[in-house]
Amino acid sequence: MISTAKADALIAEAYAAQNRTHPTERLPLAQAVGRILDVDVVADRDQPPFHRVAMDGIALALPGDSAPLPARVRLDGRLWPGISTPEGPARPAPGNAIEVMTGAALPEPWNTVIPVEDLTEDREDNGDYRTIRSGTRIVPGMNIHVRASDYRQGDPLFSRGTVITPPHIHVLASVGWDPVPVVAMPRIALVSTGDELVPVRETPLPHQIRMSNLPAIEACLAAARLPVGSTTHLPDDPDALHAGLRAALAAHDVVITSGGVSKGSRDFLPATLEALGCVRVFHGVAHKPGKPLWFGVAETGALVFALPGNPVSSLVCFVRYVSPLLRCWGRPYDGAGPFTLPLAGDTTAHPSFTLFLPASRARRPDGSPTIGPRKSAGSGNFAGLVPSDGFVEIPAGAGTLSAGTPVPFFPWTL
Amino acid sequence: MISTAKADALIAEAYAAQNRTHPTERLPLAQAVGRILDVDVVADRDQPPFHRVAMDGIALALPGDSAPLPARVRLDGRLWPGISTPEGPARPAPGNAIEVMTGAALPEPWNTVIPVEDLTEDREDNGDYRTIRSGTRIVPGMNIHVRASDYRQGDPLFSRGTVITPPHIHVLASVGWDPVPVVAMPRIALVSTGDELVPVRETPLPHQIRMSNLPAIEACLAAARLPVGSTTHLPDDPDALHAGLRAALAAHDVVITSGGVSKGSRDFLPATLEALGCVRVFHGVAHKPGKPLWFGVAETGALVFALPGNPVSSLVCFVRYVSPLLRCWGRPYDGAGPFTLPLAGDTTAHPSFTLFLPASRARRPDGSPTIGPRKSAGSGNFAGLVPSDGFVEIPAGAGTLSAGTPVPFFPWTL
Repeated sequence: MISTAKADALIAEAYAAQNRTHPTERLPLAQAVGRILDVDVVADRDQPPFHRVAMDGIALALPGDSAPLPARVRLDGRLWPGISTPEGPARPAPGNAIEVMTGAALPEPWNTVIPVEDLTEDREDNGDYRTIRSGTRIVPGMNIHVRASDYRQGDPLFSRGTVITPPHIHVLASVGWDPVPVVAMPRIALVSTGDELVPVRETPLPHQIRMSNLPAIEACLAAARLPVGSTTHLPDDPDALHAGLRAALAAHDVVITSGGVSKGSRDFLPATLEALGCVRVFHGVAHKPGKPLWFGVAETGALVFALPGNPVSSLVCFVRYVSPLLRCWGRPYDGAGPFTLPLAGDTTAHPSFTLFLPASRARRPDGSPTIGPRKSAGSGNFAGLVPSDGFVEIPAGAGTLSAGTPVPFFPWTL
Repeated sequence: MISTAKADALIAEAYAAQNRTHPTERLPLAQAVGRILDVDVVADRDQPPFHRVAMDGIALALPGDSAPLPARVRLDGRLWPGISTPEGPARPAPGNAIEVMTGAALPEPWNTVIPVEDLTEDREDNGDYRTIRSGTRIVPGMNIHVRASDYRQGDPLFSRGTVITPPHIHVLASVGWDPVPVVAMPRIALVSTGDELVPVRETPLPHQIRMSNLPAIEACLAAARLPVGSTTHLPDDPDALHAGLRAALAAHDVVITSGGVSKGSRDFLPATLEALGCVRVFHGVAHKPGKPLWFGVAETGALVFALPGNPVSSLVCFVRYVSPLLRCWGRPYDGAGPFTLPLAGDTTAHPSFTLFLPASRARRPDGSPTIGPRKSAGSGNFAGLVPSDGFVEIPAGAGTLSAGTPVPFFPWTL
């Protein structure tokens, strides 16, 4: 058996060695969130594309050297977003102002905005006036979001490989990318095995159970917005396994199986996969639960994760080893755990196995987050996982980790 | 202007006062993850439903008082998952054993499993034997996952209102729930306003910009797997706004608008919404960015969030106030921030405004997580948000918060 760290390294290496060209797909802009950009994005215009009014108020045309201002100005025009020139005079009259609204494109020579908060309004028969609150500090250029101050036309904005967040969507919209080219998701096959399993909708005989490992993994994929290409159940029969797995390997990038990898005389998965040309990368990891985990690479380049059939083992191994890789698909695999949280209490490691312990988020009295592991209820007791938010990883041979020690935390869903 | 805390309380109160019956929808099991269960779930059978073999190995029928065992036993049968009785003898012969595989339903009187790790195999002409490793401690009942030890038939498992995680999916599958009744998502309308905006696919005139607030919000909704019922763009014209908003209010549970709520003379949203019978709950919150945020309740009961049009303000107000409520839809609103993280460095509060500062996750040398706020680039500079993972909330008047102080962190996507 290899260590958890070695398993991570071997998975990363196999993924890197695939060296495949990932196909591109084009998605409606908002749907591209969380995906990997498959194009270099350049600014098609300055941002802002004009001197943008940053506050509701009035605009003045001030000379560079701040001349003393009258305390009261007459409004002889109005400018709002969506029009190209002020309604009113084409040129400012000395000492006069125009009313402006946030977001408007301010033409020269107007160059300074005083916000409504610093003005009082007074209207007379001969016009509309604003009095500037005494003590208002006026600096030429104030409250203008200057053209090209965020970026310039032609600037490289994002490079291929960027993970798209909502702020990226904002920028992609502003430069006109809709749809957006992103790296296609892997084609994922889920395969369950086990003669004792019946579909969820059926009533099992006394010695049978409903299949639940695959639905739990499908749920993790659904929560991560990862599509499932196919779902199959295969009997514990070498010929049927051979045919079913051959089909799954041929048409998918990642094949995830459940069951049939332990030491029983009817655990046919490893031999069947190897007979189909899969190269075994490892079989057995010094972690609990999930020791019999098998990982290999098919002749097609498909990555194959053969998860143990024990329900807790299958879910934990999926979340620990498979899910982080799938979320990186199309860019370099950056390792496993996205979270590290301090332990809520002292936690004792196993001398030779890495432990994955179900754990719940909690808070210290000062509000800061901690993670509280609980004793595992056993790898067959999936109901025992329900009160947990995920699991923590306690390294083999670490002795007793004291409360406050940061440990990797793997939530059931991100 | 009200405080951030007051805004939270008023939103929670308006949501609670809706007191509406949320419709149910039935989803394929795995798709129900993250949703709210709309049924009480009871165990339809014991779990495990039989004495379940917990290890690959051999099973013995031991009397309650541990008699000395022979070091070597003869196998006269085999039991695997999916069959109801062992292949071989119906009754155990004294001193003999059967081979068993993990997950099998073990009938009486077999009651004890010794794992393969503690056995060596030897076959002779007259049968198949296993030698038990010397020193193996054998306790009657060992390595059996006892029937009904996780839960019993008739036990209440989950109550209506439970948020469904992958472990729940495991249990729901085992008790046969597919499809699953869940609370229907809110019907969400997105409405953008602003005469300066053109669709993302079009080329703007020099004084125009492409619409980007709505795509960024749509992306947040997509990441949270929240459906968008309708997306509309309305011009800054009172009649068009009236007609468009009336339609949105009539057909949705939540209406989210962007723009037109500030102090400019063409900010028509508040007056239009009020003319349509919406009761204003608040207009203006002492937070930055996003001061002009408007929130109200329509005659239909629809909740209306009128977000400021400044791009940073619109996204931040959505993530801070709207998204947490949407994620609670169908159960009591449990407040805003799911995360609290310690500040990476000293951070100075504003004397009278709550600050939402863009922030990036980081790690201390010991691996524990921190959150590092950066100075805001201004509420018009959405490109300035790109390097951040979300924003932190720095309470008004808190002085200088020292590094390590836990603060609420709102990631752009969960």
